[in-house]
Parts: sequence; structure tokens; C-alpha cells
Amino acid sequence: MINSVGREIPDEVLQELTDSYGRKVEGFNGAYYRHNKTYKKAAPTVRGVVDPSEDKLLPSIKAALEKCEIKDGMTISFHHHFREGDYVVNMVMEEIHKMGIKNLTICASSLGKAHDPIVPMIEDGTITGIQSSGVRGKIGEAISNGKLKTTAIMRSHGGRVRAIEEGDVHIDIAFIGAPTCDSYGNMRAVGGKSDCGVLSYAMVDAQYADKVVAITDTLVPFPNQPASISQVDVDYVVVVDEIGNAAKIATGAAKPTKDLRNLMMANYCTQFVINTPYFKDGFSYQTGVGGPSIASTLYLGEIMRERGIKMGLGLGGIAGPMADLLKEGLIEKLVDTQDFDLTAIESVRNNPNHFEISGSEYANPMNKGAYVNRLDFVILAALEVDTHFNVNVVVGSDGVITGAQGGHPDTAAGAKCTIIISPLIRGRIPCVCSDVTTVTTPGETVDVVITDYGIAINPKRKDLIECMKDVKLPFCTIEELRDQAYAIVGEPEKVQFGDRVVGAIESRDGTIIDVVRQVKEYEFAD
Amino acid sequence: MINSVGREIPDEVLQELTDSYGRKVEGFNGAYYRHNKTYKKAAPTVRGVVDPSEDKLLPSIKAALEKCEIKDGMTISFHHHFREGDYVVNMVMEEIHKMGIKNLTICASSLGKAHDPIVPMIEDGTITGIQSSGVRGKIGEAISNGKLKTTAIMRSHGGRVRAIEEGDVHIDIAFIGAPTCDSYGNMRAVGGKSDCGVLSYAMVDAQYADKVVAITDTLVPFPNQPASISQVDVDYVVVVDEIGNAAKIATGAAKPTKDLRNLMMANYCTQFVINTPYFKDGFSYQTGVGGPSIASTLYLGEIMRERGIKMGLGLGGIAGPMADLLKEGLIEKLVDTQDFDLTAIESVRNNPNHFEISGSEYANPMNKGAYVNRLDFVILAALEVDTHFNVNVVVGSDGVITGAQGGHPDTAAGAKCTIIISPLIRGRIPCVCSDVTTVTTPGETVDVVITDYGIAINPKRKDLIECMKDVKLPFCTIEELRDQAYAIVGEPEKVQFGDRVVGAIESRDGTIIDVVRQVKEYEFAD
Repeated sequence: MINSVGREIPDEVLQELTDSYGRKVEGFNGAYYRHNKTYKKAAPTVRGVVDPSEDKLLPSIKAALEKCEIKDGMTISFHHHFREGDYVVNMVMEEIHKMGIKNLTICASSLGKAHDPIVPMIEDGTITGIQSSGVRGKIGEAISNGKLKTTAIMRSHGGRVRAIEEGDVHIDIAFIGAPTCDSYGNMRAVGGKSDCGVLSYAMVDAQYADKVVAITDTLVPFPNQPASISQVDVDYVVVVDEIGNAAKIATGAAKPTKDLRNLMMANYCTQFVINTPYFKDGFSYQTGVGGPSIASTLYLGEIMRERGIKMGLGLGGIAGPMADLLKEGLIEKLVDTQDFDLTAIESVRNNPNHFEISGSEYANPMNKGAYVNRLDFVILAALEVDTHFNVNVVVGSDGVITGAQGGHPDTAAGAKCTIIISPLIRGRIPCVCSDVTTVTTPGETVDVVITDYGIAINPKRKDLIECMKDVKLPFCTIEELRDQAYAIVGEPEKVQFGDRVVGAIESRDGTIIDVVRQVKEYEFAD
Repeated sequence: MINSVGREIPDEVLQELTDSYGRKVEGFNGAYYRHNKTYKKAAPTVRGVVDPSEDKLLPSIKAALEKCEIKDGMTISFHHHFREGDYVVNMVMEEIHKMGIKNLTICASSLGKAHDPIVPMIEDGTITGIQSSGVRGKIGEAISNGKLKTTAIMRSHGGRVRAIEEGDVHIDIAFIGAPTCDSYGNMRAVGGKSDCGVLSYAMVDAQYADKVVAITDTLVPFPNQPASISQVDVDYVVVVDEIGNAAKIATGAAKPTKDLRNLMMANYCTQFVINTPYFKDGFSYQTGVGGPSIASTLYLGEIMRERGIKMGLGLGGIAGPMADLLKEGLIEKLVDTQDFDLTAIESVRNNPNHFEISGSEYANPMNKGAYVNRLDFVILAALEVDTHFNVNVVVGSDGVITGAQGGHPDTAAGAKCTIIISPLIRGRIPCVCSDVTTVTTPGETVDVVITDYGIAINPKRKDLIECMKDVKLPFCTIEELRDQAYAIVGEPEKVQFGDRVVGAIESRDGTIIDVVRQVKEYEFAD
């Protein structure tokens, strides 16, 4: 079928997912298509611990795998709060591999280069399914080269929670790396040797997995309160030497960019924001961690100071500049699902107005109302954006899976004003094009595209166009941006894909917005 | 059948509950009988709010009832954190009554005298089912007099969470009174006009009810963080003038008792506690709010100060003396499910080592491990205790339902040392007797009974008997206590009950430990 963003979704793929999920999976049909739909939530099968003398501490990951009765065909899960410093995935997979277990599905909140070591386990059939926000590094290459037995599923952060809560995926065993944990399973993200700030994306795993194993390198006295994940959802606790590489989990505060192109785009963005009606005392805002986003936060801070306007809510993955604005009192409350640097981690540990929320609270489209629904602004990046305002953040222009949806489609769907900042050209690749390689965020949820060559407002946002009519910014159409990009670097030839679908890009609501096909060697046209 | 505490549970009652719960309900078979049993958790049917423009604020309770499509036969729920100052139950029931809805089951964490006004709705068939921790006041009388159409079900705090999570009861609509709430449904228990400290017992309602309505008298700016109950579980928000009578929700700090009998029992209790091996740095402790319990906390504080011993964890319903020990630094962490006075409420609002937990975390026997499992000591009261150490806290010696299980059976089952403090005689009624009127906490989980006439240790606790062999306290057997009571006031005649079972006392694990029969007019023996 052809879905509502014009992408062909093969019926076999929809059928494969329908069989796997146990509900009819459809092609994408608009960002708000499933609004108001009711469904019965999924639920885990758990074991009651009535006997108070029972202990949860186990001597090793192997012992936990045995206690959890791991077997072929199970689905296991991980979180990615340790980012490129994560040791947990590899540590657990190594033990599983030694046990000779096959046919596992990994359901991770994200996978990155830190997990390159599991590629051989994809090749030998230990891992036959991958569900993740995205996959960077060698795992992405392996999937794009057709090495994974089943179709990889890429979901947004909100979409992953939805999939688990709706029962599309049932987690048999969740392995949750915890910076600190007590012997009865109460986990916190602050403290210890591998401080990651929050455990937001792992909360749904704890609530919906049959078995939950806490893995920590810092056992603390009971009770480890306030717990991010509670003992009542945890079966076993394992203490290991190190769950992560602290240096790669959190870097120092992000340095402001000095790149003039980035500063220019950041300035455009701030000028745009402050000329909308949403920029007023108490506004809500989310931004990414790229150079232009961070510069834009700094510019915005200056204007807030000048005009005495405070942000009511700062949301999302948090980096230093947002934490600094909170500290200064320019933000009332920061509500956090992921921390990108030491400043943010220190803030969530110490600032009483900086709060951890769950991934469901953040972005699940099928709960009773997520935080993204309350956003005025979100500032996002893109690998590619096209003349339909569709955005691609997962597949490189070479056709290889190399990025992650993250909260991109969630915040875009929720925010009143969704702004994409992207250079017009990256390397020799046009970032504004006629059709993105892969659609990951639908154009109907994207309001503005800011590039170093000009700014395009989505024509459906007549209200924003009206607001900007006297604003001195280089407005143009999205087609003009594309034409300019093509004029500079030429229109790139289409990536050549094979026939096999290797990945499904799932929209946050569980419909399929696009597929990723196996890459093939480039063949010159006759 | 005769269950393991020797009570006859009519097969019809077990069958009625089996039909209602959808699982085979058995008679009580030992406090740890269901340890290690697995089950699939229940789940609500919810509505996805994908559209960010949707609002949750409704103008009235009536509007919320209509939006929730209330109809005959539904189960609705309430919490009791406002205690005798609660307005929410009556307010909601009045609207429902006006709408002419019939055949409702009320599943409340507890009901008290504040809810006397709903008795006519029991009589006219609006309410035909009641599930509660207990029922004081006129509702208890109505049930005991056979006015409720179905068997009332009395559960402990942990047992209620278990019942909801295991699917014995499915809540169609939960009405949650919230001292503060924002327009998107984030509720907190501190702040506002009807500050109740924590919302612990309502958390399970929010997670397992199909529809959730927040009722508040203090609407606050979004986001109301840190939320006790999250927006993602809330459908609608209604603002009313007053949700409670602040003066009856929280009283001033409990005054230390001056009653010499109470002081003596408190002193016995403290002496007992400090002579067990569990009294050491980091011990965990829960106590009630009766005069002897509070005096005992004060005595214990003195000894902790003298010996430099700190409590690691104070648990449970919290009153001023525990909050004071926390403030003084004699307790490391207070973990709280209910607040009994202003001192406790102020403490949970301001003291960073005073934490709110859910009812499941507190006491649910069928999750992966509740806080009660980590208790060293619990100090409890009783209406009656018998020579099998069985305790009754629900039914008065006149046979009328007049109390609540609360956390009594939960903490008794969890704690290493469960101490009952009770005067030997109350009025002209012996509190130690041959057989309690109704068993609510099984004797196997009760270790010590402290009275003003002597102290009996459960013979199965040979270890505690050994510990106390050189301790100068008035030890005796439980039979000696009973005999002494009977010697003073005479052995009371058995209460005369009718045949109809009006209430089931459900053990925390969902088995039936006893039943309550309809009272009948006293008839003199020939």
C-alpha cells in the first residue's frame, strides 16, 4: 500500500508486523489518526514475593540469566542512558552468547557504536530481531546489509513506550543498568560511578517485562530513595565491576559553537521564536544538543533576560545550557528524560526544580496525554528534509541506517511550533531535497525549516506566515531552498537499494511510515 | 470449608467471590501460601490522547460522570487520605444518585464516619457492593445489619493493591481527590487547602482504572511536579470549592499520652525491642498512632540517643513523633504512605529524607517485594487478640463492623518482630480471649502481645523467648493473660450472629481468612 506520506509499504511487511504484534498494523495515515482510540494495555506475568526472607542479590549475570530461565526466542531489553559509555548490553550479551541461546530479539531504547561487539551475534543467529530508536555504527551497517534475520523496527522514544504498553512487543527479561541500586532493587540514576542523571527510558521496561534484572556497580544501603525504578518491579540484583565508562556517559558541558554558519542559523531560530505568539511568560520549550540548538538556547536566554520573560517548562533530553537557564531562574521547571552532559546531571541531582519523568510521560502518544502535547516550541535537527517538510533522521544519504528517531517525531507532533535547523548542504550532500531517503517525521508536524540560506515556513501554517510578515528574516519557499541546494552541489542520484526490506520505520502511533531496504553496491547508469 | 485458622468459610461465599474475581478463591491457608505464585497482571482499557489540543478540564463532577459514561453496575473507587475530613466520596455519590445510577460497587481504600451520608444509597440500591479496608460509622452498621445487597469485602492496604493488580476487582472510574492538580492531571498531596501529605493509596487506582478523574480545589500551573499521580493516567480534571475539611484531615501533632497504663505498656514495648538482636544501627521500624505506640516511639528515641543507634528506615502511616526523630537525625529515611498529623505533613513537604511511596510498594504481597518485607519491627494495636495470637481489628466485640485492616496484616506478615500492644481489658471487654470474634491478622505472623498485665511471646518464636530469658519484664503465657482477663471481667458470652454472611475478611494474598455475619438482636439463653 501507499501510505499518507506517499511511501510504499509492502503488504508482506504489514503482515509480518501484524502477526508479530497481534493487532492489525496499518500504513501511516496522518499524525493524529489514532487519536481517541481505546485499547487494553498489556501486562507482565510476575511472581509474588510474599516471603520476607527472600533475597534478590545474585552473584553474577549468568546466575540472573539462569534464574530468569532465559531461552531461545525470548525478547530482552536494555536502555541507552549510558550512551556511548554503556557496558551493560555487551556484558549481558556475552554471557547469553556463551550459553548458546539463539533467536533473541533485542528491544533497546537505542543502540550505538558502543554495541559494535554484538554484530557477530547477529551474524551467528544469537540475535535475530532488533527493535530500537535507531542504530548507529556497525549494527546499522549490519542491518542495512541484510544480516539481521527479521525486519528491524525503529521507533521513536514515545513510540517504543506505546509499543510496549500496547503489547506490540512483550519483554521477557529487562536488564537495567543502574548507577546505584540497593539489595532489594531500588534503582537511581544519580550517584555511583556511572552517573547518568535519569532512568526515564527504562521505566516502561521495569513495568512491563516479566522479569527485571538490575545491574549496578554501586550497591547502596536500603532504601535507595527516591527510586527511579522501584523494588516492586525488580526480580534480581547483580553487582558488577563497572556498568559504563563514565567519560563517555557524560561529557563536560557542551561548548558553545563558534561556527559562523551555526551562529547565523541559531540567530534566525531565536528571531523566529520570539516573533511567534507562543513566546510569552510561561512558554514551554525543547531543544536538541547540536551546535545551532545550543547557540539558539543561549541567544534566547539573552532575550528572556532583556524582556523579563520566563520559560515555564523546559522539556526533554537536557544539556548544560538549559540547566544553566534553570539555575539562573529563567526556567521555572525542567522536566527531563535524558542527560547529555555533566552540567545536566549535576542539575538533576541538585536542583529542586529539575525533575525526572518516564518515557511514557515524555512522549507516549497513546497514554492519556504526554508532556510533548504541552510544548510550545521544539527545535530539532535533521539529516534531510524535503519539499513536503518530511524529515529523515535515521538513514544516511548513502542509504545506511545511521541515526535514531529519538523524540523527534514525538515532539514534532506535540509542539505548537516545530522548527528544524539544518545547514542547506552538509559535505557535498543537499540537506533539503525533493524527497527524503526515508521519512521518519511527517511533514504535517513540521512548521519551519531554518537553513543557512533561508527559512521556509510550512504553507499550512498560514498563522505563522502572517506573524512573520514584517519580520526581517530571509524567508523563502521550501522549493527555493531545495533548488538552491541542487544548484550548488547538483541533484544527487537516488541511492540504489535492493528489494529486501531490512527495517521498518514505525510511526509513534504504531503505523508504518516508511521502510528501509537493503543497500546494494552502486551501479553506474548505462 | 474450615481454613487454616480454624474459621468456617461457607462454600457459597468462596463461590460468589470466585465468580466475581474470575479466579479460584480459596480459604486462608497460611500467611505465605502464595509465595512464588505467578500471575498475569490486570490492565485497564484506556484512550490515547494523540491530539495535543485536547483539554482535560471539565466544569463539574456531573460533566465528568457523563464523559466517563457512568452506568449501572460499574465499580468506582476512592482513596481515604483525607480521612474524616473527606468531601469527595459524598460529593461524587450525590451526583451519581441524582443521575439515578444503580448497582454500583464502591472500591475504596477505606471508608469512615465522614461517609455516613451514603447509607441511604446502600438502602435504595445505588450502592450494592462495598470493598474497603474497613468501614467505620453508620456504613459498618448498615453492612452488619444486612442492608448491603452483596458481601462486603474487607482488604488490607496491601491486599487492596493486590486485588486490583491481580484483576479481582476492575475499577471502571477512579475519583481521586488531589490537594493540588494542574490542568493536565498531575496531582500532588502537598499544597493547597486540603493538604494530606501523600496520595499513596490512590496510585494503584490511577494505574488500573479505565477512567480517572482528578478532583481538586487548588488548580496550579502546569507542570505540577513532582507529581504523585501523573497526567498520563488521568482523563479529566474537575475543580470544586472544597475537597475536604482541613481541620479533620490533619490534626495538630499527637500529644504524648499521660495515661499510666499506656506509659507502662509503651515502656514494656521499648524494653522488648531493645533486647532483640534486630535493635542495632540501621534497623527498620513501623508503629501506629495510638497512645502506647506514640509513647513507645518517644521512649525508643531516648535509648537511640543514649546508645548512638540510628533507625535506617521508618515506614508506614506517619505521625509526628516519627517525623521528629527524622528531623533530629535519629532516622535516616522515612518512607510514607499516609500522614496522620500536621507534623507529618510538614515533614513530607520539607524534609528531603521523607519519601512518598505507593500502596503497592508499601504492602502488596504479590509484587516482587514490598517494603513491609524489610521491616524489623512493627508495633500494632488490636481490638482483640486470642490464645492463638490471632488478632481482630475490624469487628467490635458486639459483632458490628467498626474498624479497618489497614496495614495490620501486611506489616505483621513482613516484620521480623511483630508486637501487639493492647490493654488486657477495654471497658468491660477482655481484649485477650480464647477466640477473637473475627480473625483479621493470623497468629502465625504475631510474635509478641504486650498488655498492662503481662507480656506473652508466641511459643513458635523460641529465638525471642531465648533472647528475653534474662530480661526483667512480666512475661507469661497468652493463656495466662486470657485467664486473668476473664478472672477480672468474666468470660463474655459469644456474640449472637444470624446466618447471612455480610462481609468477607480477605487475607492480603486474596484467600479468605474469615467472614462476618449479620448481627441479630441479643437473645437470652433459656
